[in-house]
Amino acid sequence: MERLYEKIRTEGTVIGTEILKVDNFLNHRLDVEFLDLVGREFHTRFAGEQVDSILTVEVSGIAVAVLAARYFQVPVVYAKKHSSKTLSEETYNAEVFSFTKKTTYQIKVDRKFISPGDRVLILDDFLAKGQAALGLIEICRQAGATVVGAGMVIEKDFQEGGRMLRDQGVRVESLARIRYMDEERIEFMGGGADAL
Amino acid sequence: MERLYEKIRTEGTVIGTEILKVDNFLNHRLDVEFLDLVGREFHTRFAGEQVDSILTVEVSGIAVAVLAARYFQVPVVYAKKHSSKTLSEETYNAEVFSFTKKTTYQIKVDRKFISPGDRVLILDDFLAKGQAALGLIEICRQAGATVVGAGMVIEKDFQEGGRMLRDQGVRVESLARIRYMDEERIEFMGGGADAL
Repeated sequence: MERLYEKIRTEGTVIGTEILKVDNFLNHRLDVEFLDLVGREFHTRFAGEQVDSILTVEVSGIAVAVLAARYFQVPVVYAKKHSSKTLSEETYNAEVFSFTKKTTYQIKVDRKFISPGDRVLILDDFLAKGQAALGLIEICRQAGATVVGAGMVIEKDFQEGGRMLRDQGVRVESLARIRYMDEERIEFMGGGADAL
Repeated sequence: MERLYEKIRTEGTVIGTEILKVDNFLNHRLDVEFLDLVGREFHTRFAGEQVDSILTVEVSGIAVAVLAARYFQVPVVYAKKHSSKTLSEETYNAEVFSFTKKTTYQIKVDRKFISPGDRVLILDDFLAKGQAALGLIEICRQAGATVVGAGMVIEKDFQEGGRMLRDQGVRVESLARIRYMDEERIEFMGGGADAL
């Protein structure tokens, strides 16, 4: 994880005290060589678990989910935020409130892509207020699938998402947990100093 | 490519004569093991070219772009369709007309992610009327970058996108070119029977 901390420190930009811009490697430009290590790290962390599929939500979770999936040798399913001509009518739906946009939107997954009893690992780029992750958990609940855990590249520990998930008994593995940030500094939660 | 033809035939669904639904492996559920072969095939096809980065557009191009990028050992940049708090003001923009939605939208790439002289490979899941690809080419033109070529998983040869790109001198490599399709059958263009 040291390399992730280093990338956040050197390539990230904090706006105010809540927005961390890491578009240089995580969600606009993708540093694929590095994100492959991130994917491998999720595989290491959840190595003891049987995982049947990885579930994420478009857009910015897809790259990490796909690279992790290579190591798990499982498919990825990504929930859709936008309707399309090819999206089935038969979907699991969950409402997600966006604090940044102050609106509620629906995420949808075709029912044929999650089956009762499936062991699903949720992956995403950020865990902040937890709304997207809670939506994905709700979709798994509707499908009768088991959530093995939630792997997050960056958790904003000063927001409530991580606590909400852990309070529900979800195993959350965040590769970098930010305790505090402003335009001058970023403080990470203590934790293993294992190299990513 | 035989395996791609086979997946399109057995897992794809044609709606009318224009819409091909391949959400089982390409753009909702992602068959990562298979898409990794697709990524490797793009690397093989463009093996003689110097490629500095791979450019695609959110959402459905990302998975293939990321898996190909591992083989090229280059970063991916994906153009954004939606504005966000972390998107810079300094972007290259192109207008894209969506025939399915009958609207024009803008795609944007932060200026710092494409530099003059960069050799850029465009990858996407579908080539149909070519509007998204033309938008990506326009962004490369604005940046002073060179388009090495365009790799498409599936080309609808009965629509005009491929011809428009080739008429501009762009090298287009489509792994499956569909000459005709309806709800009964799919006809592929002849071509190498090399295994994907």
